[in-house]
Amino acid sequence: MSGRFLSLEGGEGAGKSTQAVRLARALEARGIEALVTREPGGSEGAEAIRALLMQGDVSRWSSHCEALLFAAARADHVEKCIRPALARGSWVICDRYIDSTRAYQGAQGIDDAAILALHGFGSKGLLPDRTFLLDVPAETGVGRAAARDGADADRFAARDSDFHRAVAAIFDSIADQEPERVRRIDASGDMESVTARLIAALDDLLP
Amino acid sequence: MSGRFLSLEGGEGAGKSTQAVRLARALEARGIEALVTREPGGSEGAEAIRALLMQGDVSRWSSHCEALLFAAARADHVEKCIRPALARGSWVICDRYIDSTRAYQGAQGIDDAAILALHGFGSKGLLPDRTFLLDVPAETGVGRAAARDGADADRFAARDSDFHRAVAAIFDSIADQEPERVRRIDASGDMESVTARLIAALDDLLP
Repeated sequence: MSGRFLSLEGGEGAGKSTQAVRLARALEARGIEALVTREPGGSEGAEAIRALLMQGDVSRWSSHCEALLFAAARADHVEKCIRPALARGSWVICDRYIDSTRAYQGAQGIDDAAILALHGFGSKGLLPDRTFLLDVPAETGVGRAAARDGADADRFAARDSDFHRAVAAIFDSIADQEPERVRRIDASGDMESVTARLIAALDDLLP
Repeated sequence: MSGRFLSLEGGEGAGKSTQAVRLARALEARGIEALVTREPGGSEGAEAIRALLMQGDVSRWSSHCEALLFAAARADHVEKCIRPALARGSWVICDRYIDSTRAYQGAQGIDDAAILALHGFGSKGLLPDRTFLLDVPAETGVGRAAARDGADADRFAARDSDFHRAVAAIFDSIADQEPERVRRIDASGDMESVTARLIAALDDLLP
């Protein structure tokens, strides 16, 4: 039996990586194997591409070049990690996926249809069974992200608040367009409550 | 006045990099500024992507992922190096360009229209004013390439002779389809004669 593919999306500092791990533990407690992975990266080749994407000056890559690098990293990750895990019956929880490219590259003016075309080319358009959009006010999230040490800072967190508002608006619009796949999750409050909301929002997929 | 954009194409060991430099000297002798560059690579970002593409096992990247990485490297090279040089009036001589992607990724089954679509997305479809297809029998070229030291060996040279024949067939087909842009050059014989043939084949573009 094929596993289920879940993604966590949202702006900086929304708690995605923490909740990815907590969600995996909650699934394992129900007897479901769960693999936590992340983008960009998640496979050896994709992590090498991630290093190119996350380091250097904000303007290191043009937005078109960046979109191609994200699509390349995702193609490797999907082929080498996500599809094999799903095929052996494991669930996959991915910290950021295609919707982040749509939001972050879209906020730089790249057409959504072009981003989806690259995803179709590189990864045969694989979409999650469910995507959780973790909602926190953009300012709160950026504040949390800025409070991290330097190793976690990257080329995207460094952008201004107008950019992060544009990103949030695209995430919102994707959630409006695809309500069955994408569920908004209130990510405020304590970690336990947020995890409980995630589990509740995938109730229909649980065995 | 904008400069002219020339590319050199062909299989392994056809003498492209040698002739790129010889052609630049011949243009400079005519008072034309000429920049020699290469793909994959040619700009700081594209050289970083080149390192990912050329190193490692033959099967390190899927052919779709590879096509995305080549398109990303080319986007950076075109934006940071080729277009600025042409804009200041320099001629640009590029050792491999889009036709190599069409031939090498095409020989792995990637659709030509898809490769051109990626090129349209990343580099606004920029094509050379003239492309020289250096003709040597595939076996001669692979033999020359194999005689190089290890530093020059890469993931593409390592493939078998069926692959190199498929690459040569696609180059031929591009030359048939685009006879105005693409000129076949006999690359056998001494270097001076080959350079003279290149100059003769761009006579109509010279001031």
